[in-house]
Amino acid sequence: MQFASDNAGPAHPAVLEAMTAANDGYASPYGADEVTARVTARLREIFEAPEAAVHLVATGTAANALALATLAQPWQAIFCTPVAHVQEDECNAPEFYSGGAKLALVGESDRMQADDLRAAIAAEESRGVHGPQRGPVSITQATERGGVYSVDEIAALAGVAHDYGLKLHLDGARFANALVALNARPAEMTWKAGVDAVSFGASKNGCPGVEAVILFDPSAAWEFELRRKRGGHLFSKHRYLAAQMEGYLADGLWLESARRANAACARLADGLRDLPGVEFLQEPRANMLFARMPRAMHRRLHEAGARYYVWEGTLEGDDPDEPLTARLVCDWALPEAEIDRFTEVARG
Amino acid sequence: MQFASDNAGPAHPAVLEAMTAANDGYASPYGADEVTARVTARLREIFEAPEAAVHLVATGTAANALALATLAQPWQAIFCTPVAHVQEDECNAPEFYSGGAKLALVGESDRMQADDLRAAIAAEESRGVHGPQRGPVSITQATERGGVYSVDEIAALAGVAHDYGLKLHLDGARFANALVALNARPAEMTWKAGVDAVSFGASKNGCPGVEAVILFDPSAAWEFELRRKRGGHLFSKHRYLAAQMEGYLADGLWLESARRANAACARLADGLRDLPGVEFLQEPRANMLFARMPRAMHRRLHEAGARYYVWEGTLEGDDPDEPLTARLVCDWALPEAEIDRFTEVARG
Amino acid sequence: MQFASDNAGPAHPAVLEAMTAANDGYASPYGADEVTARVTARLREIFEAPEAAVHLVATGTAANALALATLAQPWQAIFCTPVAHVQEDECNAPEFYSGGAKLALVGESDRMQADDLRAAIAAEESRGVHGPQRGPVSITQATERGGVYSVDEIAALAGVAHDYGLKLHLDGARFANALVALNARPAEMTWKAGVDAVSFGASKNGCPGVEAVILFDPSAAWEFELRRKRGGHLFSKHRYLAAQMEGYLADGLWLESARRANAACARLADGLRDLPGVEFLQEPRANMLFARMPRAMHRRLHEAGARYYVWEGTLEGDDPDEPLTARLVCDWALPEAEIDRFTEVARG
Amino acid sequence: MQFASDNAGPAHPAVLEAMTAANDGYASPYGADEVTARVTARLREIFEAPEAAVHLVATGTAANALALATLAQPWQAIFCTPVAHVQEDECNAPEFYSGGAKLALVGESDRMQADDLRAAIAAEESRGVHGPQRGPVSITQATERGGVYSVDEIAALAGVAHDYGLKLHLDGARFANALVALNARPAEMTWKAGVDAVSFGASKNGCPGVEAVILFDPSAAWEFELRRKRGGHLFSKHRYLAAQMEGYLADGLWLESARRANAACARLADGLRDLPGVEFLQEPRANMLFARMPRAMHRRLHEAGARYYVWEGTLEGDDPDEPLTARLVCDWALPEAEIDRFTEVARG
Repeated sequence: MQFASDNAGPAHPAVLEAMTAANDGYASPYGADEVTARVTARLREIFEAPEAAVHLVATGTAANALALATLAQPWQAIFCTPVAHVQEDECNAPEFYSGGAKLALVGESDRMQADDLRAAIAAEESRGVHGPQRGPVSITQATERGGVYSVDEIAALAGVAHDYGLKLHLDGARFANALVALNARPAEMTWKAGVDAVSFGASKNGCPGVEAVILFDPSAAWEFELRRKRGGHLFSKHRYLAAQMEGYLADGLWLESARRANAACARLADGLRDLPGVEFLQEPRANMLFARMPRAMHRRLHEAGARYYVWEGTLEGDDPDEPLTARLVCDWALPEAEIDRFTEVARG
Repeated sequence: MQFASDNAGPAHPAVLEAMTAANDGYASPYGADEVTARVTARLREIFEAPEAAVHLVATGTAANALALATLAQPWQAIFCTPVAHVQEDECNAPEFYSGGAKLALVGESDRMQADDLRAAIAAEESRGVHGPQRGPVSITQATERGGVYSVDEIAALAGVAHDYGLKLHLDGARFANALVALNARPAEMTWKAGVDAVSFGASKNGCPGVEAVILFDPSAAWEFELRRKRGGHLFSKHRYLAAQMEGYLADGLWLESARRANAACARLADGLRDLPGVEFLQEPRANMLFARMPRAMHRRLHEAGARYYVWEGTLEGDDPDEPLTARLVCDWALPEAEIDRFTEVARG
Repeated sequence: MQFASDNAGPAHPAVLEAMTAANDGYASPYGADEVTARVTARLREIFEAPEAAVHLVATGTAANALALATLAQPWQAIFCTPVAHVQEDECNAPEFYSGGAKLALVGESDRMQADDLRAAIAAEESRGVHGPQRGPVSITQATERGGVYSVDEIAALAGVAHDYGLKLHLDGARFANALVALNARPAEMTWKAGVDAVSFGASKNGCPGVEAVILFDPSAAWEFELRRKRGGHLFSKHRYLAAQMEGYLADGLWLESARRANAACARLADGLRDLPGVEFLQEPRANMLFARMPRAMHRRLHEAGARYYVWEGTLEGDDPDEPLTARLVCDWALPEAEIDRFTEVARG
Repeated sequence: MQFASDNAGPAHPAVLEAMTAANDGYASPYGADEVTARVTARLREIFEAPEAAVHLVATGTAANALALATLAQPWQAIFCTPVAHVQEDECNAPEFYSGGAKLALVGESDRMQADDLRAAIAAEESRGVHGPQRGPVSITQATERGGVYSVDEIAALAGVAHDYGLKLHLDGARFANALVALNARPAEMTWKAGVDAVSFGASKNGCPGVEAVILFDPSAAWEFELRRKRGGHLFSKHRYLAAQMEGYLADGLWLESARRANAACARLADGLRDLPGVEFLQEPRANMLFARMPRAMHRRLHEAGARYYVWEGTLEGDDPDEPLTARLVCDWALPEAEIDRFTEVARG
C-alpha cells in the first residue's frame, strides 16, 4: 500500500526498453545524437511550438532552477506560493542557480490567485534601487496540494505577470496528471494561456529520471545551454536521457500513465469520502489526495503496512479522534487491489 | 571507426540489465533504497574505506564541481593543470559551485609535477587578505592527454598539498583505465597515497550516466548532500542511478571494460607507432592516444569514415606532410577490426 | 522641515574634524594604522568584550550582508521579519553575500516575537535534505517601524535561537537610538542578552559613512576579513574610515546625538499626538514616528515644504479625511524650531 | 622615507575641505544630492562623454569587480595579465561579483600585448558549450609594474577585443598618473581608443576613498546601480563620497597631484639609475619604480627607516651582492628631501 510518493514507484517497462533500444553502437555525445533530435521534434509537435527551445535534464529541481535562473536576474524577486516546490523542497536551488534572487511568497495556499499576485507585484513597486526588483512568476501544475489550475486561471495569472512585463514559469512536475484532468492540449495549458517556460516532468510519471525544460521564446536557448553545462546537468551520453523521454512520449504512454494515476486517486477518494471523520482539504483533480483522518484510522493503516506521509501531527497522541492530515499520492503503477485494501482498512 | 570519445560508445548491456532488475515495485526515493545501500557498501569495500562518504551523481562535471566546492572556500585558489577538465571543459562549473573560487594553473602540461605544485602554492603566500587563499589541489587520473600518474607521483603531490594543509582531489573520469594500467588497488591509488576525495567515473567506461564522489574523511558528508540537493543533483528515483553503478561494479565488469579499452588503445598504438610521419605526444598508458600524423594521413582516415578530433591545425591546407595532432580515444566496446581498419587506412 | 531620513542629515562636525586630524603623514593601509587600532580597542571597551572581532565597513548593507554571510551557509534560511531592512531594502544583498541563502519571514510586524520565531524555526524541521536548513536569526534594533526591543525581549529571542543552535544577529543601524531609549549598556543589549553579532551603525547618527561589525565570538574573524576584502569593502586608506568612528565615539558624542534625535522625535510626537485624525502606529521609542494623518493634513505639510515619506496611499485623492501613514524620521541635527513648525502646520 | 604604497599617503587637504564644505544641512541620500549631480556632470565633461554612466564607489576593488560583473557573464572568461590587480590582489572579488566567471591570463608580464590577447581569445574558440565563453578584456593603466600603455597600444588591444565582440575595461587605479605621463586627454586614453568601461581611481592620488566607474555605453547603467546596491556599495550619505571626487577634480588638483607623484618617481629613478648593482625592470613612466638592488643596499635602506616592499627574495641571506627587487611607490605628498635621502642611503 504505497502512497508515499510518485517517486517511489517503478519506471514503466516501455521506458527502460527505449533506453535499451537506444543502446546501439556509437552516438554523438552531449545531445548531438539522433534520439535527442527525435525527442526534441516530438516535444515541439506535442506543444505545437515548432520554434521552442527544448532541453533535457535529469531532475525536477534542475529543471526548475535552470528555468528560473534563465528568466530571473540575481537582484529580482521570483513570485511563487508559500508551498511551492521551489520554495520548500529544493534546498535553495533557485537562489543558487539565479545567483541570489529572492523568492517572494504570494498568498497562503498552493493555488496562486491573480489578485494576490497583482498585490504582491505591486508591493515591490516603490523602493527603487533598494528593494528586490520584480522578476518572474512560478506556478505549479498540478499543485503541491493536489489542485489543478484551469486554463483560464493560468491565463489570468499570465495576464498579471505580462502586465508588468514579467515571465510566467510553470513547474510541471505533474504536468501530465494536470493535463488529462483538464482534458486540455499542452499548448492550451501553456503558451496559449501565456506560459513562457515549462518544466515538463516525466520522472514522477514513469521515467527513471528525465525532465524537459521548454522555452517558448527560444532566444535564451544558448544561455540555457551554458547554464545547464556549468550546472553539471549536460549529460555526455545524452541519448539515454533522451530515450527515456522518447519512450515516455511514444504511443501516448505519458497520457495513459497519468490517467491511470489520476483514476487511482479518484478511486481512493471515492473509497474514503464518506467515512466518518474523513475530510478532504480539496477535491483531488490529479493524483494526490490530502485528507484529514482520525488518528485511530491512521494507526490502523500504518499497522496494516500503508506507506504515506502524515503532514500535521503525529500518530502518537492520546486522542483517537484527533484529525491528522494524510498526503496520499497515487502513481501509474498502483494496483486497484491496493487502493481497495487501503479503504477497507481505513473503514475499520 | 569511432575514436572521438569514450562518451560516444554504448553502455554495457549488463548495466542496462541491472537498471531493469532494479525496476521491481516500490522503493524509497532519494537514495534510501536498497540498491543504493548495496552500492555504497560495495564502493567502501572496493576502496577498503569502510567509513568513506559515498554519493552518486549523474555527470562528471557534477562530481568534480561538488567535490571541489566541498573542499574549497570561495576565496581560495584551486590548483590544477592548464588542461584540466575542471579548467577547460566545465564552463566554469567549479567557480559556480564553489561560489567564486579561482583556478590556479600549475605547470604547462597534463601532468602536474610536485615541484611545480610547491612553487605555485608558495607563490600565493605573501599577499595576506588581498590574494586568493590557498585551497585544494585537483589532478586527473588518467590525465586529459592519456597519461597515468604512478602511485608514487600521486603520493608526492599529496605530500606537497598536505605540507600546506591542503586537500587533494582526484578527478577519476577514467579511474578504471588508470587503475588497471597501474595494476594497483583502488586504495593504493587514492587514500593510501594521500588522496582526500575522488570523482569515481563510470559513464565513460560503460554506464549511461553515473559517477560516485568518495570523501575519505566523511565529516563533510552532510554538507555534500546539501550541496548535491541544491545543485539539483539528488535523484528522486535514485535506485536507477545506483543500479547502473551496481551493474558496473558487479563481477569485475568495470575492470574488465577498462582493460578492453586500454588494450584497444595499445593495439592502436602498435599499429601506428612505426608509420612514417607519426609521432606520439606520450606513450599511451590508458585508453587515449595523442598522435601527430601527416595531413594526408588524416585526410585518408576521414574520407574512410574515421571519427576523432584533430586538436591542432585543420585538414584543409596545402602541405600534405604537415603534422596535425589526433586525439584518439578507445572505449570498451571498440571492435578490434575497427582498430585494424584504422591502422590500415593510416598506412595508406 | 526634514523628516525623510536620518540619511539626509549632515555629519557631525566633530566627525569630520576627526578625519582631518587623522590626515597627518603616512599610515599603514588596510587597517594596520593606529587610528584603527585605537577605535578597535575603544569598541571592545564600550562593549566590554575584550576578545570581540571588530571590523569597519562603510555602509549598513555591507555590514549586514557580511555579518549574515559569515553566520549562514548558502543552504540555510535566515530568519527575519517581513519588514527587515535585510529583506526589503538591500536589493538581495544577503542572498548575494551568503551565496544564495533564503530569508524566512517571521511574524507580520517589525517586532519579532519569540513564539513566532520558535514556530518558524520548527516549521523548517521535517524536510531533511530537501528544505532550506535552519540558519541565523536577524533582528533590527531600533526596528524599522520605530520600535525598540527590551533587553528581555532580545534575550528571549536569543534563547529560542540558541535552543536550536542558531546565532542571533542584531542590525543596529540605529543602535545608539535604541540604547539610550533603553538606558542600557551596550553589553546588556547585546552579548549579555545572547546576541552573537552586531551591525553597529554610525552613518545615520552623524558619520559620513562607517559601520562596525562586531563578532563576539572572534573565531570567524579571519573569514570575515576575507569576505570583506572580496566584497570590495576593505578600505585601503582605512584610517579615514576609522577616524569617523573615533570621532563618533569620542566624548560620548554618539550617545548625545542619539539622545538629541530621540528627544526630537518625542517632541514631534507630543506635538502631533492629540491632533484630530492623528493616530500613531506605535508609541515612538527612538527617532522614528509612524503616524496616520488625514490627507488634508499631509497636503498642508507638503505645501509648507515638509519632507517625509507617505507609506500607504498618496496625497492625490478626493477624501480629505482619509488617513495616510507618514514615516517621520528625526536626526541629531534637527532644529526644535523645525519640529514646532511641523506640528503647527499639521495643526492647521 | 615612505615608498611602500600610494595608499599610505595622506589625503589632500583640499579634498577633506570639500567634504566639510558639503556638510551643510540636509541633502537627498543615495546619490540624489547636488554634489553628486555636479561631480557626474564634471566627469562627463572631463571625459568628453556627455552620455556616459558615472557611478561612485569607495574602493578600487569594488569599482573593478562591479565593472567586470556588468560586462561579463558568469560562464565567461575575463582576459587579463597574470599580475593584474583583479587577478592577484582582490581575493577573488571579480569571481564573486560576476557569479563565477574565470580569469584567463594573457602573456607573462604586466603589459598585455595585442598578439598575446588575440592568441588567448582564439584559444577559447573550439569547445562549444564546454569551455568558458569569451568575455571582456581588462587592462591596468598605469600597470601594476609601473608601465604605461600608449594610446596606440590601448587602441590595438581594443581592436582585438572588438574584433571578437568583446568589451575592454581599463583599471585606472592610477589613471591620472598614466594620463599625465602620456600628456593625453582622458577621452583619448579611453573611449576614443576603444575603452568601454573605466575604473577611475582617486584614492591613491589624494582622496580618503572614492573611485568612479564610467560606462561609455550607458545602457547598463541601471544594472550597474542594482549591482552596486546589492554589493553594499551604494552610500546613503552619498554627498561625502561625491565631495571627495569634487575636491579631487577641482582646479586640476588631480592632474597636479599625479604630476607631483610622477616627478617624485622620476627624481628617485634619476638618483638610483647609475648606482652599481641597480637595474630597473622597466623605465618608470608613472609613480612606481621596480628596481633590482643588491641586498646590502636594501639593508642600509631598511636600517635607515625606508619603507617599501621587497618582492623577490628576503633581506636575510649571506650574499650582500645578490639582487633583490624593490617596489618603490611615490605618492603626491612625498617630499623631495625624503627622496634625496633615500638615494643617498642607497649610494652608501
